Amino acid sequence: MTKWYEDKVLDSNVVLSSRVRLARNIKGFPFAKRLTADQAKSIVDEVKNAVINDRTPIGSSFQYINMQDLDRNTKLAMLENHIISPELVQKQTPCGVLVNDDNSINILVNEEDHIRIQAMCPGYNIEKAWEDADRIDSLIGESVKYAFDDEFGFLTACVTNTGTGLRASFMLHLPMLESNGRISELVNSVSKFGMTIRGIYGEGSKPLGAIYQISNQVTLGKSEKEIMELLKNITSQIIDKENSLREMAIKNQRIELEDTVYRALGTLKYCVKISSAEAMELLSKVRLGIISGIINTNCCKSNVFNIMMNVQGGNLQSRIGHSANEGERDIERAKYLKEMFV
Amino acid sequence: MTKWYEDKVLDSNVVLSSRVRLARNIKGFPFAKRLTADQAKSIVDEVKNAVINDRTPIGSSFQYINMQDLDRNTKLAMLENHIISPELVQKQTPCGVLVNDDNSINILVNEEDHIRIQAMCPGYNIEKAWEDADRIDSLIGESVKYAFDDEFGFLTACVTNTGTGLRASFMLHLPMLESNGRISELVNSVSKFGMTIRGIYGEGSKPLGAIYQISNQVTLGKSEKEIMELLKNITSQIIDKENSLREMAIKNQRIELEDTVYRALGTLKYCVKISSAEAMELLSKVRLGIISGIINTNCCKSNVFNIMMNVQGGNLQSRIGHSANEGERDIERAKYLKEMFV
Repeated sequence: MTKWYEDKVLDSNVVLSSRVRLARNIKGFPFAKRLTADQAKSIVDEVKNAVINDRTPIGSSFQYINMQDLDRNTKLAMLENHIISPELVQKQTPCGVLVNDDNSINILVNEEDHIRIQAMCPGYNIEKAWEDADRIDSLIGESVKYAFDDEFGFLTACVTNTGTGLRASFMLHLPMLESNGRISELVNSVSKFGMTIRGIYGEGSKPLGAIYQISNQVTLGKSEKEIMELLKNITSQIIDKENSLREMAIKNQRIELEDTVYRALGTLKYCVKISSAEAMELLSKVRLGIISGIINTNCCKSNVFNIMMNVQGGNLQSRIGHSANEGERDIERAKYLKEMFV
Repeated sequence: MTKWYEDKVLDSNVVLSSRVRLARNIKGFPFAKRLTADQAKSIVDEVKNAVINDRTPIGSSFQYINMQDLDRNTKLAMLENHIISPELVQKQTPCGVLVNDDNSINILVNEEDHIRIQAMCPGYNIEKAWEDADRIDSLIGESVKYAFDDEFGFLTACVTNTGTGLRASFMLHLPMLESNGRISELVNSVSKFGMTIRGIYGEGSKPLGAIYQISNQVTLGKSEKEIMELLKNITSQIIDKENSLREMAIKNQRIELEDTVYRALGTLKYCVKISSAEAMELLSKVRLGIISGIINTNCCKSNVFNIMMNVQGGNLQSRIGHSANEGERDIERAKYLKEMFV
C-alpha cells in the first residue's frame, strides 16, 4: 500500500504536511457514543454507499476497512500513519474507515462523530487538502442528510467542533525552536489566536523528533476560508522563526551544528539496536542537516519524514511480519535504518 | 620520527605494552635535586659520552635532546608518548633525554635520579624490555661509577626505588573490568603483593580509555627476576579476568556489546569535533570490538593504541603544526579519526 508521505517531494523546510478534517453527523441518529449496534451498522452502510461507487473516479479509489476485522498491530500501524484515531481503535460497535489508494484521504465512520473526513497532503499545501476534503464532503452530502443548524452550522458530538466542523492543521518540524527551548512560548502565543500546538500524535502526546502539529481550536463564528487564512498566517511566522534560528546556527555555530547532525547520522548508520524515541530524535537532527545543506540528500533512500513514520512500533511490526517484542523491534529498527542510510 | 607503538603487531588481547625502568645515580655527586648547574652539566656529559659512541650499534642509535631547547608542545607530545616524565618538563638545571631511533629506549638524565633507563616494548614482552634496559645499564656502567651499597643495592633519591632501582610495568586495556566496576577491587588486591595499578599517565592520573598501568611498588629485598615473575603472575590473573568478562559478554550480551562498539565506531567516523577524553572512551570500545572479533580489523589504518596516543593534545598539536586552541584541536582530532577509520 503506497502512502502519501512517501512522496520524495515532501522535503519542504519546515512544514512536513497539511491536513484538513471535517466533522459531520447524519440527521436522525443519536451521536456516535449512544448508537445501538444496528444504528451504527446503518450509518456505516449509508456512508459506504455514498462514497464507494463506480460513477466517479474518486468513488472507485476507496475501500472500506472494518475495524473489528483488523489485528492489534495493523490498527497500531494505521494509528501511527494518522489514518485512524486512538478512539476508533477501542470502539466495540460497528465502525471503520474508508481509505483511498494512497491513504491521502480517509473517512472515519462512527468515531467521535458519525463521519470524519480527513485529507492529508505533503508539504505546505492546505488548499489541496481542503479541496480533497470538500469534494468528499459534497459527495457524501449528495446522498446523506447532515445534521445542520442554520444558526450553529454543522452539529457535532463535542461542541468544540460545532460550526464548520473544520480542523485544519500543519505538521511542523521545529528542531531549532525546540533545542532553543522556545516551544512553550510558542504554545502560549498561538493560543491567543485560537490555535493550538501539540506533539506528533495529537492531544496529550509527547513531542517526538521535534515534530509538532498546529491546528485551529475555534470552529465556530469563522468561515472555513478565514480559519485556514489565520492558520497560514501564524504558521508563516513560526516558519520564519525556525528558519532564522537555523540560519543563525549555520552562520554562528556551524561546527557545533555539523557535529550534532553528523553524529546523529553516524549513530543511525552504526547502531545495532535503537528505541523509537531515540531514532526519532536522531532522524530529526539528520533532517535538519539535510535541509540546512550540511548533509547530502543522497545519504538516505527516502525522505526523512517517511523514515520517521516507518520506525514507529506498529509500522515496524508490519515489516517484521510476526509479533515481536520490544527488543526485537529495536534490532529490526536498526536494520531498517542501515538500509535507509547509504 | 617512528614510534615503537606504531607496530601493527601491538594488538595483543589485554597487554598493550611492557616497560622496564632502572634508576641509577653516579657516585660522588649529590642527588639531582641538590645539583649545581655545573654538576648537572657534568652528569649530562658523562652519560652522553657513556652512551653515544661509534663503537657499538646501540650507541650510534641514540641522540641527546636537551630539555631547555624544546618548546612546550614538543615537551607535551614527549610526555604523552611516555618518553619523558612530568618532573623533567619543569626542571631548570641542565637535564635531558637520550632516545634511540624508534623511541623504544630512552635515558632520562637529571630527573629525580641522575639516570633513569626506560625500555618499552609492544605487547606482553617484559623480557625484551628488560634485555634492552639491562644492556644500556651495562653500557653506562662501563664508564660511570654507580652509587651502590652492598647492603641496600643501588642508591636512589627516593627510598622507594632503592635496591634494584627497577620498576617493571605493563600497560593494560581493561574495558570490561572497568565497565563492570571492578577496578578498585583490583587495585586493592594487587597492593597486597606490592604492586600498584594507575591510570595511563602514571601516578595520580585519571584513567583514560580504560588503560591502566600495573607495576611493582617494592624494589628492595627481591631480585629483578623475582619482581618480574611476580608482576607476570599477577598480570596473568588480570588478563584472565578481563578475557572471561569479554567472553561472557560476547556469549550473553552479544547485541548490547555490538551496539556499544558499533555506535562508538559510528561516532568516531562521523563526529566533526571531539574531546580527547571522549575519543579515548570511544577508541577503547572500538578496540574491544576489534579484539572480540565484532568489528573487522581493517576498519582502521593503524592499531588502536597508536591512535589513542595520537589523539592526545600534544601529539595532535605536532600534527597541526602551529599553536592551536582547544576548539581547533577538537576539530583536528575528528579529522584525524576520519582518516584513520575507513
